[in-house]
Amino acid sequence: MIRIAVDLMGGDHGPKVIVPGVAKALERHPEIRFTLFGLEAECLAVLKNFPALLEASTFVSCEIAVSMDDKPSQALRHGRYRSSMWRSIEAVKTGDADVCVSAGNTGALMAMSRFCLRTMANIDRPAIAAIWPTLRGESIVLDVGATIGADAQQLIDFTMMGAAMARALFEIEKPTVGLLNIGVEEVKGMEEIKEAGRLIREAAMPSFDYYGFVEGGDLGKGTVDVVVTEGFVGNVALKTAEGTARQIGGYLRAAMSRTLMARIGYFFAKGAFDLLREKMDPGKVNGGVFLGLNGIVIKSHGGADIDGFAAAVDVGYDMVRNGLKSKIEHDLNLYHTRRSALAVPAVDSSSS
Amino acid sequence: MIRIAVDLMGGDHGPKVIVPGVAKALERHPEIRFTLFGLEAECLAVLKNFPALLEASTFVSCEIAVSMDDKPSQALRHGRYRSSMWRSIEAVKTGDADVCVSAGNTGALMAMSRFCLRTMANIDRPAIAAIWPTLRGESIVLDVGATIGADAQQLIDFTMMGAAMARALFEIEKPTVGLLNIGVEEVKGMEEIKEAGRLIREAAMPSFDYYGFVEGGDLGKGTVDVVVTEGFVGNVALKTAEGTARQIGGYLRAAMSRTLMARIGYFFAKGAFDLLREKMDPGKVNGGVFLGLNGIVIKSHGGADIDGFAAAVDVGYDMVRNGLKSKIEHDLNLYHTRRSALAVPAVDSSSS
Repeated sequence: MIRIAVDLMGGDHGPKVIVPGVAKALERHPEIRFTLFGLEAECLAVLKNFPALLEASTFVSCEIAVSMDDKPSQALRHGRYRSSMWRSIEAVKTGDADVCVSAGNTGALMAMSRFCLRTMANIDRPAIAAIWPTLRGESIVLDVGATIGADAQQLIDFTMMGAAMARALFEIEKPTVGLLNIGVEEVKGMEEIKEAGRLIREAAMPSFDYYGFVEGGDLGKGTVDVVVTEGFVGNVALKTAEGTARQIGGYLRAAMSRTLMARIGYFFAKGAFDLLREKMDPGKVNGGVFLGLNGIVIKSHGGADIDGFAAAVDVGYDMVRNGLKSKIEHDLNLYHTRRSALAVPAVDSSSS
Repeated sequence: MIRIAVDLMGGDHGPKVIVPGVAKALERHPEIRFTLFGLEAECLAVLKNFPALLEASTFVSCEIAVSMDDKPSQALRHGRYRSSMWRSIEAVKTGDADVCVSAGNTGALMAMSRFCLRTMANIDRPAIAAIWPTLRGESIVLDVGATIGADAQQLIDFTMMGAAMARALFEIEKPTVGLLNIGVEEVKGMEEIKEAGRLIREAAMPSFDYYGFVEGGDLGKGTVDVVVTEGFVGNVALKTAEGTARQIGGYLRAAMSRTLMARIGYFFAKGAFDLLREKMDPGKVNGGVFLGLNGIVIKSHGGADIDGFAAAVDVGYDMVRNGLKSKIEHDLNLYHTRRSALAVPAVDSSSS
């Protein structure tokens, strides 16, 4: 049995999209048991149409819904202990749930998650990992905006956590990992990336293959399973890619409606266009994973539709089923053991 | 008359693509006079097929061609004074040409340009400005990789230079300018972006409208005419967008060849697809502009085809014709005058 806490109040659409999304995920994974948090009147009105979900769930009535434009500090001030967002995170802390899923605003969700769950031992800062559709399938990119800036040790932490997540999500034994860099030779700066690369290579971890540096163009190509970068760059890259996809979608629609011939062509190729739309649909691949906290929190796109929210619940399900948290802990411990082992002879030889 | 120096040896294809590209630009702008730099045997073999270009050009035989994988330091060591790249930049320095165009490797071209032309008064660091296709037309994005990291003053310099370039390239009087940031509220860091935004707003320059912060998703949308960021982020964003366009192109090709119906549809809509391909073709919009040096250098994509190289020459032509250099100098002087004017009362009031 996998126990998932869901904040029904978040996102652009609230319970009327989230509840059917959860119901859809339950159809795929009947062994899930849900604890659902939300404002009673609004939620029960929708929930009563999903008897199977009601059967598999406990509903917890909350006093407050965090709004999509609450600042993190506001959300913490007003919503701590009593909002649906807080209480769904808290269910992970108390052990009543294995994972929490929310479509609420990212800043508030991260602030509450940090405050409630705290960072893991050996981890300075949490990261948000995005699942990135690529020509080869999917990759994981982190951090996409939990914090700004990262030193070498933080990039190494992101590497360990991302690799563990790839093993849990893609069910592969040895994912490949790259550090995002720019290809201009001999440009000064970004010593922290070079340093992180050196240390990761030295540690020769058995849990992933370190590929080296990758560039922005490698993201869509799917050159590696995990791309590691600091939050500002990761966030800009993610939004740039989403924006470029929308831009090309716009060009395509304009081109296909411009002439009669194009419209005839569109009619014949409609199946192909539907397939393309599905490929490009951000809702199909949904669920940012908060890593580095004492508990797993999944952030759904605020604008996700029913399928999108169900996909985010699926990600949470996979993370629990495949033991993400213990994988991260194991790898972090192994890394620090290896580092100490590497450090000792280095000191010995220099002092001899 | 506009005088353009061209390095015939750069790029993936060398003179056999660059020479026809230059010839094409000449057809559009017969008033250009070219000075062409390259290895004699290789270049003259191609040039002899373009009598009109020969007529409008002086060919200067050089001893060395900088290779596409030379490191900047190698290129400077071996190619200074005698490579086609160096000599085409030098023609701008000596005043024999108004602008230089090269498809050579970016690192070497920037290193040589800095060394030969030096940065302008009041400018610490040069920037590379890219022309970015958007849903609304085109925008300018800088820096896309000349240097890594930028403090508030450097971001302000980029802003002034980018706005001047927008006026020269788009021939608009008051372009809009935004600073690239991430939308997560209250995240610590990036004080330099906030500081730059504050100072730019305060200066209330008559040469552009300061829009405020923009995000990665605004790049493809074309929210502003000029997007300012430091080189690492700009480079990752540029390559991510190009990669995403290739990725979607890949999806589209796969979708359109999958079924008979799709292939029939493709046949009817071929004109529309050609239009789309043209929109997405990075060669149509080509020419990174080096800003902040005592002279203008245009960097063509290494992989540009004949049309692509001609487009890069066009950019150089527009920059000269519309007085880019004097626009930048004028705006920088105005900004520094305003800053001093703003600074004086501030000091007065605090000491009173």
